[in-house]
Amino acid sequence: MQVARSQARSRFMSSSMAHSRLLRSHVQTQSCSRALTRASSSAAQSSGPSSPTPSPLPPRQAKWRGFLQTLGRVTLVTIVAATGTFYYVTQKDRHPGPQLPFDPEKKTLVILGSGWGATSLLKGLDTTDYNTIVVSPKNFFLFTPLLPSVAVGTLNARSILQPTRYVTRFKSRQVSVIEAEAKEVDPINKTVTFSDNSEIQGQVSSTTIPYDYLVYAVGAETQTFGIPGVKEHACFMKELHDAERMQRQFLDCVESAAFPGQSDDEKDRLLHMVVVGGGPTGIELSGELHDFLEDDLKSWYPELASRIRITLVEALPSVLPTFSKELIQYTESTFKESKIDIMTKTMVKEVKEKSVVLQMPDKSIREVPCGMVVWAAGNKGRQITQDLMAKLPEDQTNKRGITVDDHLRMKGTNGTIFAIGDCTASSYAPTAQVASQQGAYLARILALLAKKDGLEGKLAASDEDADTIRKKIDKIKLKPFHYSHQGSLAYIGSDKAIADLPIFGREWASGGVATFLFWRSAYLSTLFSLRNRTLVASDWMRVKLFGRDVSRE
Amino acid sequence: MQVARSQARSRFMSSSMAHSRLLRSHVQTQSCSRALTRASSSAAQSSGPSSPTPSPLPPRQAKWRGFLQTLGRVTLVTIVAATGTFYYVTQKDRHPGPQLPFDPEKKTLVILGSGWGATSLLKGLDTTDYNTIVVSPKNFFLFTPLLPSVAVGTLNARSILQPTRYVTRFKSRQVSVIEAEAKEVDPINKTVTFSDNSEIQGQVSSTTIPYDYLVYAVGAETQTFGIPGVKEHACFMKELHDAERMQRQFLDCVESAAFPGQSDDEKDRLLHMVVVGGGPTGIELSGELHDFLEDDLKSWYPELASRIRITLVEALPSVLPTFSKELIQYTESTFKESKIDIMTKTMVKEVKEKSVVLQMPDKSIREVPCGMVVWAAGNKGRQITQDLMAKLPEDQTNKRGITVDDHLRMKGTNGTIFAIGDCTASSYAPTAQVASQQGAYLARILALLAKKDGLEGKLAASDEDADTIRKKIDKIKLKPFHYSHQGSLAYIGSDKAIADLPIFGREWASGGVATFLFWRSAYLSTLFSLRNRTLVASDWMRVKLFGRDVSRE
Repeated sequence: MQVARSQARSRFMSSSMAHSRLLRSHVQTQSCSRALTRASSSAAQSSGPSSPTPSPLPPRQAKWRGFLQTLGRVTLVTIVAATGTFYYVTQKDRHPGPQLPFDPEKKTLVILGSGWGATSLLKGLDTTDYNTIVVSPKNFFLFTPLLPSVAVGTLNARSILQPTRYVTRFKSRQVSVIEAEAKEVDPINKTVTFSDNSEIQGQVSSTTIPYDYLVYAVGAETQTFGIPGVKEHACFMKELHDAERMQRQFLDCVESAAFPGQSDDEKDRLLHMVVVGGGPTGIELSGELHDFLEDDLKSWYPELASRIRITLVEALPSVLPTFSKELIQYTESTFKESKIDIMTKTMVKEVKEKSVVLQMPDKSIREVPCGMVVWAAGNKGRQITQDLMAKLPEDQTNKRGITVDDHLRMKGTNGTIFAIGDCTASSYAPTAQVASQQGAYLARILALLAKKDGLEGKLAASDEDADTIRKKIDKIKLKPFHYSHQGSLAYIGSDKAIADLPIFGREWASGGVATFLFWRSAYLSTLFSLRNRTLVASDWMRVKLFGRDVSRE
Repeated sequence: MQVARSQARSRFMSSSMAHSRLLRSHVQTQSCSRALTRASSSAAQSSGPSSPTPSPLPPRQAKWRGFLQTLGRVTLVTIVAATGTFYYVTQKDRHPGPQLPFDPEKKTLVILGSGWGATSLLKGLDTTDYNTIVVSPKNFFLFTPLLPSVAVGTLNARSILQPTRYVTRFKSRQVSVIEAEAKEVDPINKTVTFSDNSEIQGQVSSTTIPYDYLVYAVGAETQTFGIPGVKEHACFMKELHDAERMQRQFLDCVESAAFPGQSDDEKDRLLHMVVVGGGPTGIELSGELHDFLEDDLKSWYPELASRIRITLVEALPSVLPTFSKELIQYTESTFKESKIDIMTKTMVKEVKEKSVVLQMPDKSIREVPCGMVVWAAGNKGRQITQDLMAKLPEDQTNKRGITVDDHLRMKGTNGTIFAIGDCTASSYAPTAQVASQQGAYLARILALLAKKDGLEGKLAASDEDADTIRKKIDKIKLKPFHYSHQGSLAYIGSDKAIADLPIFGREWASGGVATFLFWRSAYLSTLFSLRNRTLVASDWMRVKLFGRDVSRE
């Protein structure tokens, strides 16, 4: 019966477990046969090997040791198997194979941008259908939600980058990736003009190419609302160099405060950090700054750490307007504990070199001395987007951005330009989540379009089966884009995060340390590649072990 | 006898091994007693648990399984123990305790610099003896030998940095670390003037402080020999931002070559990298560039990779003049295989934006088109060093740098200024090794000086025991500095390195893959902290798994 039970159980065991069981029963058998021999010739002098026989252990201890044994073997097998698999996958990711060349018969698809929308589209796109050209001033995708972590050194900058070629080189047909800034789109003649603006340029550094379809995903730039001094004195939090600049400036403030002979007032000024914008970026940045202070600066600058103050300024009546009320309250109380000041209904009137001018809720004006201002408040359309819209004055009248139809086609372009992400004026918030879903949707739409275009080509070539082909064409239905909100997440410092998640149609709000772990795993799984996941996870481990780096590069 | 032997052996076994042995013998005992019970009541129907008894395995297989079992347990124990220890050590390193405050009775020791010399001194210095002030424009130590690895992305920049406070905060008496550039040293009045030159400055950004002893370790700057265009168009390889700039420029060249419509000639120009200087830095950089090309660019830029050329230019008749002849030859043949051109006896006459003008061995002039020039050729004294020397015109006449005596005291300063590292004109090569040994030596000398100064103070205070004290003072002998050469190492690409090591008084030359592993372990052990060792090792693993990043930040 014992045998039958053990067999039945073994079916459910993992192979490694089963293997280790086999090993154990074999060892038993061996020693048993030895013991039997000894027992039968008990009186006779045995010349064979004798082993010491300590008194038998109580069953509980034996069980514990058996468990340890098994655990040891499982660990070993797991390590070997996981390392092997991991290594195999990484090596495959490093060596893309040959690709099909461009096919003059295929239509040309130009993608402007390498952000959330463009990268998500590239991931899903079947490039056999098109000759694809990607034009972006950055030759990489930046995982923007983790930018505040880079700004305080929790993550290395390169951990949240993914070169665009790491995606395109694995496509069946080659994709041309061009590091250049788009300067002009001509929706009438269907051309794009772009140029290489970097430090080093070749003989040719500007050119115009035609397109059949254009995916316009150039994003937005930081909105300063024309407030004086913002561009000159504030740090932004949009691009990688913004985060790196903030890190340098922050440590510069700390070092300047440590300069001998600095007055207490001046120390207080230098160590006062003002974050403008109560959206997720501003909140996460304040939280990360607080962590940096608590975890690291207190150790290395004990004489200054107690003077550092963080103030968050928001023009609206509350921070995080897209989150539920209880989470806003939770964030506010957590910030209070963390000694981060929140000033709502407060507007920035001017940013000066050593202070920020605020209009308080009672309309009074106050000049607050500070060492650094971080500007995380809003988006605005890029110049090229405004120019493109000006060329279609009848259809493009929304000042917030490009107007698109249900299929993300830019109005007035006869379906030749698709616009996604922050450059559009949609009913959705300008988030990574929206852009990413739009990109994925567009990959499907473009596949259908290719099919349709192929059939239409056939129809023109011969009139036999015209009806069948026409029926096939009619069957191709382009479903409109539908956004499915997966929830909102934000890190608020002190190993706490908040989450608003729609579960079974209901909003589910949670905040705390468990949510922080969820935040981490959600971000890890959202990262586009095993490489980035590993790098970010190992950065988190690095900070846990060694803390953040306080050297000012 | 078996027992005795096993006991004797166990003394030499590690505790984890011994533990696993105990576990095994216990499992044997248990099953034996069960078997014995069964044997004695062989005919009777046993109601106890019965286990299936498969036919015994041949001893070889059993041995193998036993080995696996032990290995599993050893792995488990090792992982748990190592993780625990590692975590404990890292946490201790992150939380320095309280320190003694400055003592007005102690002499003031000012250290200028945070490089090899200064950091090595700080490591060894007993700060109870002095009120120590460190002044450096960088608030970190940079592990310069690995700079070429940073330039191609093999290492992250922050992996080879160590904030100076990570050393000073663990000293018994507090050390004041000031991020500022020394502007003037007054050896007569014994003062230093320094100022904060960074972007953000406090009200006080320049000050003058007195010193009793000054350690002058400001290093050197890049020597351009007055060759036109070097400063404007070439990349240096001395500071961290040089390496980061080179990485950006290199990828910029590649991206510009990938711009549509670029002619083949222009592609060849953009992808021609010229490294000037055949010393270890130039050699390692060329090797690293070659690795980047082979390991990564071939995957991501297959259409361009074959066009990339690396040329190393050296004015002397051979590269690596400090290495032995066979290693020079080995390097030359390895570079030939790697298709890195070496041009010896060739002088750079000018660096232009898109080319470099060379004087060939036959004195003819040739203009070579190229995308990037990296300048790794020589050191020159900083302005402040020249100014300081000019104040002591009688004693400081060597144009190469500061003249010191056998005890590293700057001549003409009555033993109040010590000078170490690249700012001095010594018979030693300007290497990290020399500076590091000088710093360690100075830590010992300063301890002796403190002792001597203390005794002399006593002597002045009371005349009792004057003779005893005088005898004690006479006993304090300052041994002259002696440099002990530990060998020369250089990485030459393709996982190969070369080493000249003095072993038992003989020079031992080796090159190849084994030497590469030696190179890695030597560098790892030379890194100043567990943190840096872990970061560099994990970067090496990262590159092995995921390759280098081709995104141009």
